[in-house]
Amino acid sequence: MSRDTGFLGDRRALAKALTRVENGEFDGLQDLAAESASWLIGITGPPGAGKSTLTSALVTELRKSGKRVAVLAVDPSSPFSGGALLGDRIRMRSHRDDPDVFIRSMSARGHLGGLSVATADAARVLAAAGFDYVIAETVGVGQSEVEVASVADATLLVLAPGMGDAVQAVKAGVMEIADIFVVNKADSDGAGRLVTDIRGMLRSGVVDEGAWAPSVVRTVAPEGTGVAELLELVERHRRHLDDSGELGRRQRARALFRVRQAAEELSDRAVAQWLAGSQAEVDSVLGLLLTDRLSSRQAAERVLRAMIASGEPRAPAAGVTHP
Amino acid sequence: MSRDTGFLGDRRALAKALTRVENGEFDGLQDLAAESASWLIGITGPPGAGKSTLTSALVTELRKSGKRVAVLAVDPSSPFSGGALLGDRIRMRSHRDDPDVFIRSMSARGHLGGLSVATADAARVLAAAGFDYVIAETVGVGQSEVEVASVADATLLVLAPGMGDAVQAVKAGVMEIADIFVVNKADSDGAGRLVTDIRGMLRSGVVDEGAWAPSVVRTVAPEGTGVAELLELVERHRRHLDDSGELGRRQRARALFRVRQAAEELSDRAVAQWLAGSQAEVDSVLGLLLTDRLSSRQAAERVLRAMIASGEPRAPAAGVTHP
Repeated sequence: MSRDTGFLGDRRALAKALTRVENGEFDGLQDLAAESASWLIGITGPPGAGKSTLTSALVTELRKSGKRVAVLAVDPSSPFSGGALLGDRIRMRSHRDDPDVFIRSMSARGHLGGLSVATADAARVLAAAGFDYVIAETVGVGQSEVEVASVADATLLVLAPGMGDAVQAVKAGVMEIADIFVVNKADSDGAGRLVTDIRGMLRSGVVDEGAWAPSVVRTVAPEGTGVAELLELVERHRRHLDDSGELGRRQRARALFRVRQAAEELSDRAVAQWLAGSQAEVDSVLGLLLTDRLSSRQAAERVLRAMIASGEPRAPAAGVTHP
Repeated sequence: MSRDTGFLGDRRALAKALTRVENGEFDGLQDLAAESASWLIGITGPPGAGKSTLTSALVTELRKSGKRVAVLAVDPSSPFSGGALLGDRIRMRSHRDDPDVFIRSMSARGHLGGLSVATADAARVLAAAGFDYVIAETVGVGQSEVEVASVADATLLVLAPGMGDAVQAVKAGVMEIADIFVVNKADSDGAGRLVTDIRGMLRSGVVDEGAWAPSVVRTVAPEGTGVAELLELVERHRRHLDDSGELGRRQRARALFRVRQAAEELSDRAVAQWLAGSQAEVDSVLGLLLTDRLSSRQAAERVLRAMIASGEPRAPAAGVTHP
């Protein structure tokens, strides 16, 4: 490896560090080399669009130029899928023995702020471990997937023809976060129509002057067709963010998102903990709620008042790692 | 109307009160008549199972015995659908002019704790307004729908044959909350098989001694077939909850859920508000996060410490209705 990656130079140590990230136990970032020029690519899209095959093709293409690549497979619906599944996928097998490719499924059992924050934290660890690119591939298209995609430097939305009205099928809020639209399976019937539909939708959206205008690229992932062009587009997008100052703004917004998510969850935990440990006060409030003498909000305000009066949420002491 | 329903005796006043519930502005429960023998039936199930037709058939059946019925159509995915849609549905039109039927779409624009807590609060208002039954029909089957169903006194899961493997299609966590399984479109091919599948799944689950054992009923909603039997089952379930003392436990658990959801959201709002108003502290934390000197959690702990030190979250003053 070309960089000093500290204790993460060892693959098993890296895997352990990522498990600690998932479990919300990792606080070792300050020990890592600060240099981290890694680029986080988020890949999302409906099932069947070919996201895994495209991810594998992207890895192959990046390896041609000697880049080190980590892949995180993020599945919000099955938090207990563990770390083995993705590496066993047939298309990923060709990369499995490559020491400069790291593949891992991602869950967030105990991570504060959920899967998107865990993914962002894991990407930082992988960056510090010397990976030039981190690809986060999400399964499905829902609110969690949108959030995961929103922590990426570049968000790719993968669609394919022959899936009904793909543009309509993608939920509101997903189209808006895409930096690059990938029409995969571009050799199938309907690919041209899909490109036209996406472009039509993009034209109807307003792009601020100087902002990145999302574009469409066609790929046939199993053959690698269009993947070099896709990567070129990823690089052009990266340069645009760099040159326009947009990168700094995005990074700040993402960091704020991570902090807010984690802080909200810490305070939620304090509320749940107080409720579980304050039998008498809780019984009194529930009695009033059940007889309609309080609304839910009035009851909640009463709980927060009592909780604050009792000294909660306690300010976590510096250095405490398990709040 | 047979009961003293205070200011809710007027239909327009009731609609206004429910809008105030949705907007998180309603604190008038203490003014209502405490007598509220209403029963909240939650109806959930995948799209196409015939939930709306079944809801309409249930209303027809309940009206035969003179019961007053309110219907809340709950759609987590479109919070801005407004109040007009449901009443315009063709199958609901027959009830539209019945003064003892109240139909309303439900959203939760500003309600603390989300749609499920808003639905529970709205059901309390409708109970106080003298409705014997409140039917909450949710659209789709996801986490939010499960939560809405979980605030009901009786949860009906509606499935239909001919939708692929319906039992498999229903997400984990949904089967577990159903008190009664309705196999609708029971005159279609595959209905018997679906009943068998559900019974097989139910047998594999463990039911505590004395607890309600979920059962299956067949309906053909457009013709009203099986709807009387379904209602009979709803009543048997109600008596079971009453006799076993389970009702009290469920009501307490639901009240606790409402309080916890609302209290967590209040504290989340305090966090977001503090972050938005504390530029200098936030910049300092983000700087540390962006240079990997803090993990997300450490940054969040720092934020909470600073927030508490600054006196937030402020204990909401008694009587303050807009925190």
